[in-house]
Amino acid sequence: MGLFTKDIKTMNDLFVHQLQDIYYAEKQLVKALPKMADKATDRQLKQGFLTHLDETRTHVQRLEQVFQMLGLQAKAVDCPAIDGIIKEADEVAGEVEDKSVLDAALINAAQAAEHYEMTRYGSLIAWAKQLGRNEGVSLLQQTLDEEKATDKKLTTLAESKVNLRAAS
Amino acid sequence: MGLFTKDIKTMNDLFVHQLQDIYYAEKQLVKALPKMADKATDRQLKQGFLTHLDETRTHVQRLEQVFQMLGLQAKAVDCPAIDGIIKEADEVAGEVEDKSVLDAALINAAQAAEHYEMTRYGSLIAWAKQLGRNEGVSLLQQTLDEEKATDKKLTTLAESKVNLRAAS
Repeated sequence: MGLFTKDIKTMNDLFVHQLQDIYYAEKQLVKALPKMADKATDRQLKQGFLTHLDETRTHVQRLEQVFQMLGLQAKAVDCPAIDGIIKEADEVAGEVEDKSVLDAALINAAQAAEHYEMTRYGSLIAWAKQLGRNEGVSLLQQTLDEEKATDKKLTTLAESKVNLRAAS
Repeated sequence: MGLFTKDIKTMNDLFVHQLQDIYYAEKQLVKALPKMADKATDRQLKQGFLTHLDETRTHVQRLEQVFQMLGLQAKAVDCPAIDGIIKEADEVAGEVEDKSVLDAALINAAQAAEHYEMTRYGSLIAWAKQLGRNEGVSLLQQTLDEEKATDKKLTTLAESKVNLRAAS
């Protein structure tokens, strides 16, 4: 992006910019999730992070397919939002002494990432439809559905077990 | 927070840390929302940002009440996530030339902030219940409900009008 020019001139430009932003975010999460799995104590949570790591790798590939469908090279642009969310997750995790409390903090951190992605994919799908770029809509929708499902699983795990243990 | 000590030892410490984090986030949004209202072209969107600014000021006050109920001084800790979300909003908005496309980008940015807050308040409410700190639950729930309502209003505005105009 240029410092002295406004590079987003059309809705299509905004759509492509957002694709590049979430492509960066997914790739950062591929790096972050193994560290979160390492830190998790609860076995179900650890496994949940690893399962979501596999899904996230698929999300990266789906975005590459969407770029291809649009006749574009897959490209990432910096996404300060996901960088901030991951930085916060690292900082908070580094401050927690108790392992059960750390699990609760990790779930909370992961949910911030899921929610960020949910809002981005939601907008991308709405914009793609508006622009008549239906080729990628079903791929983006599959990913959105998986992010929502992961968020729900994290809530269930927190409320059924992790918070209980952390507060005891 | 100390550099060489792990300051979050209990679930209650995590709860208080998260209160301080969202307190910082709400205060940053009180600064960011007038700028977003200034940039918005659509009158309904501009008014929506101003209405949410009033709500956000109330959210700050509610958090101060929660701190007071817990016998604590209201205190903010840095929240890299909201800083990242606001930085991204500023960067993208600065890149957009067309006013209708800018409105779509502003809605997208605002929804990232709403979703961040929704996940934080969701965790805070769950943790407060778990810890038996019911004094603040209804205040936190009121705010969560308002964040969700704002997110829905933004989606409706985007899909009924703003995206349509931006893509035309």
